[in-house]
Amino acid sequence: MILVSNDDGYMAKGINVLVRVLMEFGDVVVVAPHTGRSGKGCAITSEVPVKVWKVSEEQGLQVYACTGTPCDCVKIAFDSVLSRRPSLVVGGINHGDNSAVNAHYSGTMGVVLEGCMKEVPSIAFSLCSHDADADFSATLPVIRRVVAAVLQRGLPTGSCLNVNFPDVPSYAGVRVCRQAYGQWMNEWKGHEHPNGGTWYWLTGSFQCSESGSLDADKVALENNYVAITPTKIDLTDYSLLNDMQGWGL
Amino acid sequence: MILVSNDDGYMAKGINVLVRVLMEFGDVVVVAPHTGRSGKGCAITSEVPVKVWKVSEEQGLQVYACTGTPCDCVKIAFDSVLSRRPSLVVGGINHGDNSAVNAHYSGTMGVVLEGCMKEVPSIAFSLCSHDADADFSATLPVIRRVVAAVLQRGLPTGSCLNVNFPDVPSYAGVRVCRQAYGQWMNEWKGHEHPNGGTWYWLTGSFQCSESGSLDADKVALENNYVAITPTKIDLTDYSLLNDMQGWGL
Repeated sequence: MILVSNDDGYMAKGINVLVRVLMEFGDVVVVAPHTGRSGKGCAITSEVPVKVWKVSEEQGLQVYACTGTPCDCVKIAFDSVLSRRPSLVVGGINHGDNSAVNAHYSGTMGVVLEGCMKEVPSIAFSLCSHDADADFSATLPVIRRVVAAVLQRGLPTGSCLNVNFPDVPSYAGVRVCRQAYGQWMNEWKGHEHPNGGTWYWLTGSFQCSESGSLDADKVALENNYVAITPTKIDLTDYSLLNDMQGWGL
Repeated sequence: MILVSNDDGYMAKGINVLVRVLMEFGDVVVVAPHTGRSGKGCAITSEVPVKVWKVSEEQGLQVYACTGTPCDCVKIAFDSVLSRRPSLVVGGINHGDNSAVNAHYSGTMGVVLEGCMKEVPSIAFSLCSHDADADFSATLPVIRRVVAAVLQRGLPTGSCLNVNFPDVPSYAGVRVCRQAYGQWMNEWKGHEHPNGGTWYWLTGSFQCSESGSLDADKVALENNYVAITPTKIDLTDYSLLNDMQGWGL
């Protein structure tokens, strides 16, 4: 059984396309936000209670909606929805790019990092298009290959995959990448409220600081490659850890 | 100038204690959530606009409140509040433990990961107590030492520090650690709504899967050591990246 969630909500096109592919591999249970929860990263809900309810059911597929964050959806699925541990946790297909530092803000990656913390092989799929009616058809053969490989080989405990697709009809290839360096710039746009005061909308443009290596996920995407970034839940900088032993703290 | 934020809100005791210590090192600007935003990780606010306003001002200290997440606070500080780049971004002192996988859920770490993405040396401080009136006095000499060391030595671009204090009056010492392995268990408690239906509160207990090595931050804390975990924004699993080159995807 495969657990599926996302951050665009259970009704988004991306998750519904994904579910049909995954049903080729076994039973699917969806526990996904009842509405869009983009940019929620690994946020969890502690200040209010969360509700989860069955939306639909058919042969091989159960769909639940949840008022919580993407991480909450995975947590509550394991605790209170699923009758057994899933063989795979899959997030997506996200409507938008989750490469580079976007992995930190991504609710889709929240799903997959949470699945990884539960020690189940976990894969995020994202398409570099925010179009609600985006064309996911080119992604499907690659999703099949990646899912089949992970079901056969497994993933190391504590690691998951962040798979991003360029928004093109055919790919230059598939590359296993590292997270690209870069940062968001010019992130806020201020607007005067009619009754006074400034309110700011989050916006911005991503400035990649890579010099063109296809080993970097963002660069691979820009060159029409599918980018697969193996991702760890262990955030430790072991090199700095060694250096700091000499700091005398 | 030092930028300070947190996830407990600008009025929390922890941030106010921290500000007084940091003012020994230079001017301080606080841009912090106007209310508690615990467990928000690296969440950002895209679906509604965000407001920021000055709450108070004195010699060497300006305090702003913001309706956004901890990450938003740092983003909007850099974009629209600060007149120049800070020499340091500091998060905390958090009321609660941010060791082990808690780093992923922590809004305090959201502050510091965001500061790190902006390429400014960044440090998170957290005390293992949720008490709103917790006693932070033992933390102060260690905070002074860590801040002085980072101001003198800097940190590698893309790395920051996650400093956690045990809730004891005196420490066994200070250890530079790795993120401990473990996971949250029994995470939800269901309650019947008076009008029907079950609502779930997030709760749970953390199960450490370490065998007692003081190199693991959670274990060091349990043994009354201050745990400093050097933390990276690059989530790439380079070992798995190498392995996957042979997968033939």
